[in-house]
Amino acid sequence: MLLKTLREEVLEANLELVRRGLVLYTFGNASGIDRREGLVAIKPSGVPYEELTAEQIVISDLTGKIVDGTLRPSSDLATHLELYKHFSSIGGVAHTHSEFATAWAQAETPIPCFGTTHADSFHGPIPVTERLSPPEIAGDYEQETGAAICRTFAKLDPNAIPAVLVAGHAPFCWGANAAEAAHHAVILEYVARLACHTLSINTESRPLARELHDKHFLRKHGRNAYYGQVKTQ
Amino acid sequence: MLLKTLREEVLEANLELVRRGLVLYTFGNASGIDRREGLVAIKPSGVPYEELTAEQIVISDLTGKIVDGTLRPSSDLATHLELYKHFSSIGGVAHTHSEFATAWAQAETPIPCFGTTHADSFHGPIPVTERLSPPEIAGDYEQETGAAICRTFAKLDPNAIPAVLVAGHAPFCWGANAAEAAHHAVILEYVARLACHTLSINTESRPLARELHDKHFLRKHGRNAYYGQVKTQ
Amino acid sequence: MLLKTLREEVLEANLELVRRGLVLYTFGNASGIDRREGLVAIKPSGVPYEELTAEQIVISDLTGKIVDGTLRPSSDLATHLELYKHFSSIGGVAHTHSEFATAWAQAETPIPCFGTTHADSFHGPIPVTERLSPPEIAGDYEQETGAAICRTFAKLDPNAIPAVLVAGHAPFCWGANAAEAAHHAVILEYVARLACHTLSINTESRPLARELHDKHFLRKHGRNAYYGQVKTQ
Amino acid sequence: MLLKTLREEVLEANLELVRRGLVLYTFGNASGIDRREGLVAIKPSGVPYEELTAEQIVISDLTGKIVDGTLRPSSDLATHLELYKHFSSIGGVAHTHSEFATAWAQAETPIPCFGTTHADSFHGPIPVTERLSPPEIAGDYEQETGAAICRTFAKLDPNAIPAVLVAGHAPFCWGANAAEAAHHAVILEYVARLACHTLSINTESRPLARELHDKHFLRKHGRNAYYGQVKTQ
Repeated sequence: MLLKTLREEVLEANLELVRRGLVLYTFGNASGIDRREGLVAIKPSGVPYEELTAEQIVISDLTGKIVDGTLRPSSDLATHLELYKHFSSIGGVAHTHSEFATAWAQAETPIPCFGTTHADSFHGPIPVTERLSPPEIAGDYEQETGAAICRTFAKLDPNAIPAVLVAGHAPFCWGANAAEAAHHAVILEYVARLACHTLSINTESRPLARELHDKHFLRKHGRNAYYGQVKTQ
Repeated sequence: MLLKTLREEVLEANLELVRRGLVLYTFGNASGIDRREGLVAIKPSGVPYEELTAEQIVISDLTGKIVDGTLRPSSDLATHLELYKHFSSIGGVAHTHSEFATAWAQAETPIPCFGTTHADSFHGPIPVTERLSPPEIAGDYEQETGAAICRTFAKLDPNAIPAVLVAGHAPFCWGANAAEAAHHAVILEYVARLACHTLSINTESRPLARELHDKHFLRKHGRNAYYGQVKTQ
Repeated sequence: MLLKTLREEVLEANLELVRRGLVLYTFGNASGIDRREGLVAIKPSGVPYEELTAEQIVISDLTGKIVDGTLRPSSDLATHLELYKHFSSIGGVAHTHSEFATAWAQAETPIPCFGTTHADSFHGPIPVTERLSPPEIAGDYEQETGAAICRTFAKLDPNAIPAVLVAGHAPFCWGANAAEAAHHAVILEYVARLACHTLSINTESRPLARELHDKHFLRKHGRNAYYGQVKTQ
Repeated sequence: MLLKTLREEVLEANLELVRRGLVLYTFGNASGIDRREGLVAIKPSGVPYEELTAEQIVISDLTGKIVDGTLRPSSDLATHLELYKHFSSIGGVAHTHSEFATAWAQAETPIPCFGTTHADSFHGPIPVTERLSPPEIAGDYEQETGAAICRTFAKLDPNAIPAVLVAGHAPFCWGANAAEAAHHAVILEYVARLACHTLSINTESRPLARELHDKHFLRKHGRNAYYGQVKTQ
């Protein structure tokens, strides 16, 4: 993939987060990876979205070394890199402080799968990381955040649940590319909103039965999916 | 009715759901029926609303056989057909995952009639279906969803309560045509929102007295209605 | 006042309710009175706001007889008339089903004065009417609604608290003219929203001290008001 | 600084509050100070934002004497002056009745630091003032409000926590200039919203660990900050 194309995709994913109302000021960032070259494109730190251009997107290698671009990368770069290194199938990462997903992260409560809107995109509850320890916070904090996410997925499939809540912080989402990562961030926020209202209406609300959860996820994903139009080349 | 007209009505009802903020991405669909011909027009599956055209609306017969159109129909077609077959007076169906109505469906709690806004359009609480059994989920899932709705209305009049909450899923609404079904979906969402806040303010809130519920519904519906302007030909 | 002017003022107040997001479809109405002539101008029933013109505003006398206009008046006309007859100082009435004020009406709970935003406009809690009895509902329902409001104000000053919640229905507001009535409807909705969140944060929240309540109301109203600019002719 | 420049900055900060949805009607005001001249520029009282011009911004000295401008200043001027006199490092003040921050003020509950969104901008919980006593309310009320804020910060650093909730009233924020004060008002509202939802999801939610709170605040503030781009002259 050309770096120019990657940068444009990453710019577009960042702008999509803003258009969908998931980002206040500069509180969010999306990135994408060119797996062949081992290069990651990410939003620069603290640059207002309305001024952001594709040229300003920073290019880093997987060790965090900046290989192209004149601005500082997002301060969360090391978290993104940790995800790219451990989740080998993903091509994009999106991080927001969106209203309801962040509230669940602050409440340190996994989002139960209360309905098919959730099951259509996430094949299980949205997990919450452990809190970081004082040494992890004092050390390479952003990398440790990524490591905490990866530990949370030790027994989970990141392709089946492409989102996590970082305890006391906010969500990270991922996908096949930056656009899909942003798409998951949008759906996660909606699912988080629905789940908050669901508990407000009935504190005893029960998660979906496993069979229905599977049915909806597999209606949209995998070999037997039948939602949407047949994709042809 | 000309198929072209039916398609345009169904397109318009689908777009109305989007304009009213009831639909995220492609999470919703509206359909309409030509009773004389036994043909149903429905949104194609997974097509973005901003690109949707009347020509793309899919035409099916009541058995689910596609008789016109090149795209796959909404994956919920079988649910719509079940409603058309059992509720003989309806001419349109609208399905959304709108925020508060979906939360009530996820909470598996009927929406009580707390006020005249509700009573003006729905002559009773909005019922919730039973959960589907594992064999129903494994079988013809979308048709079983429709069958569960019809069982819920075994002792209810679908013309007096033109909406239902499918447990763990979301609402379905209906009406004399696709436009009225969409109209009911908009009002249902507002009623769901009001009822959620009502409980939040006072968990002991009481439903409307039967007399007032009847008064408001009959002020707008039936022979003695006196709301709005006299309809003349 | 010319009828034309009154109609334009009433049209404008109705449109303001829509612009402020207080009205879904046609669920609301505003009116104004010419006290000298004893004529009331009110929105016609069920006419979409986007098509509403000043000419369509209906003119009624205080007995409910239509003296000018070709459309049916709002079905709530008799409630407005009751208020004009009993609250001699008011010149306008606005009725909405706005989201949070309606929720408080449905919860049959007076809105406590939790803060200065409330105290700036309403000199006391927003009261709730009694429920109507079955004979009142079966009788002249809309007039009885007005009568219930007036009974609620038997020991309250309608100029100091220009709003009420009709139990199980929605708010009515009033003011010196239709514009001020609409203005009070907007503030009431905001106050209702604040109060709902306040209870959600702290169920033990205490009303404002009487001294502060008085201070804020009197900062804006009456002879010693010092908020805003000095009005000169 | 030229008075003209100060007025334009203060106008812009006031308009930013409106653009961000923090202000209903005229319920809010922002000011800025020229420390060299000891002059404060503040919004006039009760003037609609859509008509507000830089020339209308009122200039006062620190005793509250109007030294330039033909309109009355905001009725909250004395509160602003009290803050400028006691918090020597601040250059701007913003006051709103924004929805969720006001709800916390009405609930008389400090906003706990539940997450990094809060910690990024506020180095501790957002404190609430004591209620004013009847003599304080009857006396120079607006100045006493400022004095109550200053007492609340007796053992707090106003530069590390640039916001307060006035009990039963609403928030005041401050910063290096009027623009930063408005910026803090926007973030405070978002933090208040997140915290309200957090408690709604889990009433047992725990504040952030001190180490993480420090880490995030110091990532953005002080000598070792590494968020954003390097500021060069």
